Amino acid sequence: MERSSSSSTKMVSAVVFSKDSFFKMAREDEAANLVLITNGGIRSKIVTTSTTNTITANDKLVPHDDHLTTTRNIPNIPGWFAEDCPIWPGEAHFLKVEKILFEGKSEYQSMMVFQSSAYGKVFVLDGALQLTEKDECAYQEMMTHLPLCSVPNPKKVLLIGGGDGGILREISRHSSVEHIDICEIDTMLINVYKEFFPQIAVGYEDSRVKLHVIDGTVFLKSVSGGTYDAIIVDAFDPIRPDHELHKTPFLELVAKALRPGGVLCIQAESLWFKSLDLQQLYSKYRQIFKGSTDYAWTIVPTYPSGVIGFLLCSKEGPNDVDFRNPINPIDPNGSYGVAKAPLKFYNSEVHSASFCLPSFLKGKGIN
Amino acid sequence: MERSSSSSTKMVSAVVFSKDSFFKMAREDEAANLVLITNGGIRSKIVTTSTTNTITANDKLVPHDDHLTTTRNIPNIPGWFAEDCPIWPGEAHFLKVEKILFEGKSEYQSMMVFQSSAYGKVFVLDGALQLTEKDECAYQEMMTHLPLCSVPNPKKVLLIGGGDGGILREISRHSSVEHIDICEIDTMLINVYKEFFPQIAVGYEDSRVKLHVIDGTVFLKSVSGGTYDAIIVDAFDPIRPDHELHKTPFLELVAKALRPGGVLCIQAESLWFKSLDLQQLYSKYRQIFKGSTDYAWTIVPTYPSGVIGFLLCSKEGPNDVDFRNPINPIDPNGSYGVAKAPLKFYNSEVHSASFCLPSFLKGKGIN
Repeated sequence: MERSSSSSTKMVSAVVFSKDSFFKMAREDEAANLVLITNGGIRSKIVTTSTTNTITANDKLVPHDDHLTTTRNIPNIPGWFAEDCPIWPGEAHFLKVEKILFEGKSEYQSMMVFQSSAYGKVFVLDGALQLTEKDECAYQEMMTHLPLCSVPNPKKVLLIGGGDGGILREISRHSSVEHIDICEIDTMLINVYKEFFPQIAVGYEDSRVKLHVIDGTVFLKSVSGGTYDAIIVDAFDPIRPDHELHKTPFLELVAKALRPGGVLCIQAESLWFKSLDLQQLYSKYRQIFKGSTDYAWTIVPTYPSGVIGFLLCSKEGPNDVDFRNPINPIDPNGSYGVAKAPLKFYNSEVHSASFCLPSFLKGKGIN
Repeated sequence: MERSSSSSTKMVSAVVFSKDSFFKMAREDEAANLVLITNGGIRSKIVTTSTTNTITANDKLVPHDDHLTTTRNIPNIPGWFAEDCPIWPGEAHFLKVEKILFEGKSEYQSMMVFQSSAYGKVFVLDGALQLTEKDECAYQEMMTHLPLCSVPNPKKVLLIGGGDGGILREISRHSSVEHIDICEIDTMLINVYKEFFPQIAVGYEDSRVKLHVIDGTVFLKSVSGGTYDAIIVDAFDPIRPDHELHKTPFLELVAKALRPGGVLCIQAESLWFKSLDLQQLYSKYRQIFKGSTDYAWTIVPTYPSGVIGFLLCSKEGPNDVDFRNPINPIDPNGSYGVAKAPLKFYNSEVHSASFCLPSFLKGKGIN
């Protein structure tokens, strides 16, 4: 399993796309220490790196139970679970645990599956809630169909992260799609989803899917220019300006891999969080992709603030992409693909509505 | 302070609209006992009533600290607050308490104001979160402008509940409005809001506002037919089919008080909760109001599931009301009225978008 490496001065490009909407990002800080950032928040582990700034698999991998030793910002309640999310301090959404169904550790991270009394089965990765059976539809369907319904006849799609299979399941509904690549580094995660969330992992059963157990950045470097109609980055972390995924080098790789007029969908922060700076994000994405850029959001009760956003952008092409008015409608009855069930959340009305922003965001001169 | 009373056989019409989007409902059950229902959940208190079914102020009033003796369904965390909401079991949204600013009891209920680290000041009523400074805009603005922007030149408006003043503040933005009646039974609540939430209670400063310290049902009985262009019921409890507020007698009083073509906006349950039965609600409201009926929703991170809904309906009139396409735009800059600040959440785009429903609700044959 290969990791990307870099010999640049400050930033070590160790973006590891691992599983089910999750990634780890190792970067070298000013003191040449490794800092591990996950969607469970920011956790630090001091690891002396070599002076050449070349990171090998061994020193990049922070033990998966590392988070257990860090200070918890929220209280523990026996029999209840809550994600400890230091970047949104002062609140915690607890779910009652009926039964823990699985606990395990892969080479990269710890996993837990539990039966909740309110949201069905829940998947937790290194302490961070990834998805629940009850509300995953709102995330997976929107993240997939917002980009795919905005372009005519998408044929080749790349998914980075999304190891649970839910986005694969949704891509599968599109009959125009001929090939789906997915980069997921943690095979154990895939297997856990297949065992406990078969209606989500069903996405892997689509014969058009090709799994690449490889770092997303490394994979992108190997891709011919202009390959994909759509790229979905399901890394499940809010957009922060200093994020590795939102750094120019990664985005330039994505832009190169897209065909002219191709589209990217990547998570963005909840509109409720002040750290969301749409102007800054739009500016950066427009500079790199040179097409249209827009922000949409959906409601997911078990995510912080109950809302999560998506940044959508298109690579400069013959026609501008108008994300707000889908041109590639999808059969709501789920008659195509492996889902074998109708859409639960997405429809064309919700698609367009998801771009409407509260006045406190419109006031920033966007939209 | 007057209470309504009834000598009907089963149901004692003791709906007490008290404060800031809150109400208590006392009803006589089969065994002639009093059951107190609040937005903090369902709590029972056995009180033997007189055989005549006439309830006096003394026996209707359940002590405000009654809830402290009931079993709590969620754990306590010192220094953190969470609403105990038995009708949505298995989850709890905790907010860190920086400082308790006020604790007190009125004749009717207990109140607490605390400074949270994440959502500004928070108002709690009998253990139930009423509003927070950070997200109240999404509720108050939508609940007000969804109905008022859907009718031409509203002149007379009735607010039942909403004692905090936030909806008054929003109604105040409409220059066409000539008179605003509000029924709020608990003057202490109003005073607490004025002290700790001046930017919300500012609504009372509008000279068009007339406060009636009286039960909403009693007030409605005194109103001439066809008086109001709009009635807003801010009772802050999800719609449940067995709710007093959604019983035919109360709704018939509302319908009578509306002019032909006048509109009602009343809270409805979050779209995430299975107990929301739009078909049943639509059917009942259409039967009574005979105009159009629709459901909208907004996002409020500190409410259960992060979403709350509104039921909108119009009384049969010369023209159908199309709630989805507002015909009475509002100045976004807040140049009129007492708010003295621009709208934070509402705009015409968000108005229309708020009626778009996920497929799992559209599948029920509604919309």
